[in-house]
Amino acid sequence: MPVRREETVLRYCVIGAGHGGLAMAGHLGVMGFPVTLWARNPQALDPIAAVGGVFLEGAVEGFGPVQAAYSLEVALEGADVILVVLPASAHREVAALSAPYLRDGQRVLLLPGRTAGAIEFRHALREAGCTADVIVGEAQTFLYASRKTGPFQARIHGVKRQVLAAALPASRTGELLEAIKPAFPQFMPARWVWKTSLDNIGAIFHPGVALLNAGRIESTGGAFRHYVDGITPSVAALLEILDAERVAVARALGVGALTAREWLAEAYGVERPTLYEAIQATRAYADVGAPAQLHHRYLLEDVPTGLVPIASLGAACGVPTPVTDALIQIANAVCGVDFRATGRTVERLGMAGWAPERITQYALEGDVVDVA
Amino acid sequence: MPVRREETVLRYCVIGAGHGGLAMAGHLGVMGFPVTLWARNPQALDPIAAVGGVFLEGAVEGFGPVQAAYSLEVALEGADVILVVLPASAHREVAALSAPYLRDGQRVLLLPGRTAGAIEFRHALREAGCTADVIVGEAQTFLYASRKTGPFQARIHGVKRQVLAAALPASRTGELLEAIKPAFPQFMPARWVWKTSLDNIGAIFHPGVALLNAGRIESTGGAFRHYVDGITPSVAALLEILDAERVAVARALGVGALTAREWLAEAYGVERPTLYEAIQATRAYADVGAPAQLHHRYLLEDVPTGLVPIASLGAACGVPTPVTDALIQIANAVCGVDFRATGRTVERLGMAGWAPERITQYALEGDVVDVA
Repeated sequence: MPVRREETVLRYCVIGAGHGGLAMAGHLGVMGFPVTLWARNPQALDPIAAVGGVFLEGAVEGFGPVQAAYSLEVALEGADVILVVLPASAHREVAALSAPYLRDGQRVLLLPGRTAGAIEFRHALREAGCTADVIVGEAQTFLYASRKTGPFQARIHGVKRQVLAAALPASRTGELLEAIKPAFPQFMPARWVWKTSLDNIGAIFHPGVALLNAGRIESTGGAFRHYVDGITPSVAALLEILDAERVAVARALGVGALTAREWLAEAYGVERPTLYEAIQATRAYADVGAPAQLHHRYLLEDVPTGLVPIASLGAACGVPTPVTDALIQIANAVCGVDFRATGRTVERLGMAGWAPERITQYALEGDVVDVA
Repeated sequence: MPVRREETVLRYCVIGAGHGGLAMAGHLGVMGFPVTLWARNPQALDPIAAVGGVFLEGAVEGFGPVQAAYSLEVALEGADVILVVLPASAHREVAALSAPYLRDGQRVLLLPGRTAGAIEFRHALREAGCTADVIVGEAQTFLYASRKTGPFQARIHGVKRQVLAAALPASRTGELLEAIKPAFPQFMPARWVWKTSLDNIGAIFHPGVALLNAGRIESTGGAFRHYVDGITPSVAALLEILDAERVAVARALGVGALTAREWLAEAYGVERPTLYEAIQATRAYADVGAPAQLHHRYLLEDVPTGLVPIASLGAACGVPTPVTDALIQIANAVCGVDFRATGRTVERLGMAGWAPERITQYALEGDVVDVA
């Protein structure tokens, strides 16, 4: 049953009609909430507009009425919460597109944010001239394991019991979750966005493995298992160094980030003396296939919104990140892209020259005078 | 028939009893030259000592008498030319071991030198206190395609028609080749060691490909073709950038190094618009298998004696080498080794702080006063 807030039914807008956006919009519809859906590709909306919603199967079953909105202005109008279910590399563009239409009191949640998603989204809103009092937050990971099974159908394989989320600044996380909890009580407050940003395990498990199997991906079309075959003892040895760099950057910002091994223990209950053994023992990874090509989100998303911000924050904090830097360089060369130029550096996040204390304070309190 | 120089038969010493050392010592013996053979592992000498030489088959056939010498002092004594047929990563150690026994007028040729082999060998001799007037030189590549077929047997598949070699300083290349040509007229003078050092195509074709197929090598035991399957379009795109960095470093030192594509055209007559197409069209590469493991000379030799000196020379000349640097970093992490600490940096070559002009002059003229 939809929940009323101040005598008004909460209204949601979902941005993105991939597997996640479709599942989330459909789920909201099944629960009875009014929900609009917008996608960058309008053709993805046609079948949903035609049938008036999304059919779900799996952990959630039924037909969820969803209002397909071809105009972003219409999609955002009157929405209490905007759920952005997109590859993180699209956050900046969607922020710029949304900027003219966002209004005081609206809340944006990025699902997930990857590293520094909320900061980039907020910075892009400002750059686009948005002065509305919009709360922007990010989730540490996505809520569902889901798959798009047809043009207006999705399967939800599972729903996570708990997902951390934080607003920017952290002082407004309560307000953000208040409007999301009626539909999704799974979201729990993280201390701040540096927690949701720096526990980015995808940045450890995706791009390095793809690069150290680049020839294999491209010559076999990904005919191997990403984790089981792709992460050999030597590849895992590199990932442990990469992971230690991430944790060191987090520590410099005052975040007690989990190591990848600790994260595997917490998420899957797998404890082993090395990362290699832990990954090999994680059942959820046993059948995960490799990408069919190198132009895949493991590089196109995880480098600019994972490795790049981690390396850039490291530089800002005086923490060396040589293996992270090297993987970015190799990714640039392999993909023919300059991910440092397009990715989330402190410069592109509006934090050029900020001292670590100011970076920390910004996540906690928002704009502050320079404490340096 | 052996050639006499000043009424004395030229005497050769071969260092190394791998496929190359065995073939070269056997070939010298077949030609009738007195030759001693020394190896770091004395067990490799036992069968040769027992039969008194090496049996050759293939492009050279016959039994070559070879004197197996268990003592390096004995092996070097009276040798006019010392042919070092070892992985380049062993040059420093062998130089230090040889230092007490080398005498005025002896000539050392590294086969091959990789990048800066002669410079490292000479520097290591000096560090070990050798003051004898020894000429040290390096060949650009090895003379034979050969294989060890038994404990005292080797097969020479082919003999190159021409191999460039240079002494350090270049002013002594004539003296070096004079003593080698009687046995090996294939060696032709290069202008200087920077030519033999910077046309190091192995540094382009070996370590990057191994790293971008690291998971594949380790999980399949190298069950793929190094060039044909390992060098996909995206891997080749990285190699083209890596190669451009090498050529730019060479240019900064005044060397007109061949690009990898030019080298394929010259060596194999294959001309194609991209490096990817050229490699795929090179018949000699069609059946070359991948390494069975990552702890292989493609990394253990080619990183410290190829990528490391190229990057270090680039830094000394103000030429950025970001992809070379990144591959070294990734190799370090994958192998658990610090190749910059053990490899041929300008510091380890005794050239710390040298201006490019001085680095150039040293190869041409030997020790010079600082021209800066």
